[in-house]
Amino acid sequence: MNSTDFVKAYAPATVANVCCGFDVLGFALDQPGDEVWVRKTEAQGITISAIHGIEGLSANPAENVIGVVAQKMLEALEVPHGLEMQLHKGMPVGSGLGSSAASSAAAAYAVNELLGSPFSTKELVVFAMEGERKASGSAHADNVAPSLLGGFVLVRDYEPLDVVELGVPLELYCTVLYPQIELKTSLSRQILKQEIPLKQGIRQWGNLAGLMAGLLKKDYALLGRSLHDAIFEPERSILIPLFKQVKSAALAAGALGAGISGSGPSIFALSATRAQALAVQEAMEAIYSGSGIETKSYVAQVPEQGVRLVGHSSYKPAQL
Amino acid sequence: MNSTDFVKAYAPATVANVCCGFDVLGFALDQPGDEVWVRKTEAQGITISAIHGIEGLSANPAENVIGVVAQKMLEALEVPHGLEMQLHKGMPVGSGLGSSAASSAAAAYAVNELLGSPFSTKELVVFAMEGERKASGSAHADNVAPSLLGGFVLVRDYEPLDVVELGVPLELYCTVLYPQIELKTSLSRQILKQEIPLKQGIRQWGNLAGLMAGLLKKDYALLGRSLHDAIFEPERSILIPLFKQVKSAALAAGALGAGISGSGPSIFALSATRAQALAVQEAMEAIYSGSGIETKSYVAQVPEQGVRLVGHSSYKPAQL
Repeated sequence: MNSTDFVKAYAPATVANVCCGFDVLGFALDQPGDEVWVRKTEAQGITISAIHGIEGLSANPAENVIGVVAQKMLEALEVPHGLEMQLHKGMPVGSGLGSSAASSAAAAYAVNELLGSPFSTKELVVFAMEGERKASGSAHADNVAPSLLGGFVLVRDYEPLDVVELGVPLELYCTVLYPQIELKTSLSRQILKQEIPLKQGIRQWGNLAGLMAGLLKKDYALLGRSLHDAIFEPERSILIPLFKQVKSAALAAGALGAGISGSGPSIFALSATRAQALAVQEAMEAIYSGSGIETKSYVAQVPEQGVRLVGHSSYKPAQL
Repeated sequence: MNSTDFVKAYAPATVANVCCGFDVLGFALDQPGDEVWVRKTEAQGITISAIHGIEGLSANPAENVIGVVAQKMLEALEVPHGLEMQLHKGMPVGSGLGSSAASSAAAAYAVNELLGSPFSTKELVVFAMEGERKASGSAHADNVAPSLLGGFVLVRDYEPLDVVELGVPLELYCTVLYPQIELKTSLSRQILKQEIPLKQGIRQWGNLAGLMAGLLKKDYALLGRSLHDAIFEPERSILIPLFKQVKSAALAAGALGAGISGSGPSIFALSATRAQALAVQEAMEAIYSGSGIETKSYVAQVPEQGVRLVGHSSYKPAQL
């Protein structure tokens, strides 16, 4: 892409943890998502010239995840020029939908495209993880990997990093409901116990193995039976108003399973069809109706593809 | 099978736990295994008229797992006659290779065949589990289910019981080495901690998810990378002399992975070909050579089929 002056990439929201898949499993949604625009500059260094769609995010490239990710890539490649970047946030921050991951993934992909694709998309995971390190203090991969790679992704281990693409063996639709309360990931992590009862551990990994088998053997019923989390959900859900009622409503409306998205406060539910996912959305929204809590909700398909190019050359942001 | 006077069934040895699959995953071996012979008697009740291949097992039907399993089936079916049974042990007891499970599975299958197959093979799992309850005090399914159903089997949960047949998506050969030391399952369970560090739990279920993905996506390398157990193996392997050396030798000889079979003392190693499994056997045996510990070892394929009929009508035990 040497002939291209600028590139724009879109990276989608993601659901991590996925009930029994705590810290190891995530999947992509086809929407919402973030866009990152980038062009080369003769001057060294990175500037973030605009941030759209959200208030209050820093445009300091050392403080914004897109600048952090891009900087790591420039260093790795020893690029002799600088970058101008713009971020278009298409999703709420702090929602549990992988907002920082989507920005990081879009930045990594856009910069890679601009520089002639020196890295495969899978190789971009380690760069996007640096955005997560900046955002949450921990370089986890369970949001950035599905945002980059699409479908379901297993992060088997970190020492060394082993990212396993599972794809989308069976069609799935995800309803996500974001109750607009403030919930810091760090708080949500603090309340986790550092020791778990062996019996709970065994049930948890039995369910995760069932979830994997349901997915890979294309068995919706098994997938649904396996979507449980008896360890973290009881602790974390107390931070999410009306969680139990919303989850019950989703299951009653036909969802295969439901749980906390990431570390919350968003709640996700998986369904086998779009019609079902829409009915689930209505049921989940109804619980918050009149509660005084504002919500945003989405119905998304779990897509085969994650991050993608949405513009280059012919695209000019209005500001330039 | 109303016209049949007697039935003989063979049920194979099994490997449970499978590294990261502690308490939830097991697989069958095509050999060794146990045979159970059964015929109807006019008199009520169960008699065990012979036990071959082993010394010291009780012939009291209330004390031997084959009698316990058969009794549960007679009660469930309200059968108006009795049974005469014989057990042919083809494998060592207390080896960690699912010896009581093989006897229980063979008994359940033989009795079911003799009575006209009122139950499916999968439905026999709950009866065979009663043999495990007798043998170890805990009605676990992770040996009896693969012994009955063949291939790999996931016991996702017990409340309610959810047995998931995974089959044999990719060809696998298992080397098992049994160092002939006494090791009681109850002792091996006693040394387990009842709480596990969260970090270890996450790595364990990441590996189990990787093992499932490796198996179901037919990816030998991923399966091999996932065969780890950082929780139980360090505790239990101290009861098995030379464990570390044997495991290292197996891996050096080309095994995909290795670990403790069940609760030991047998050690298993998985390989992609029979030739590899034979080379692994030689390497594992070499470690014990000259140690003063007697060993038995087997190379087995993971078979699609578990328990099977090996004789009926035309077969007459020499003793009758």
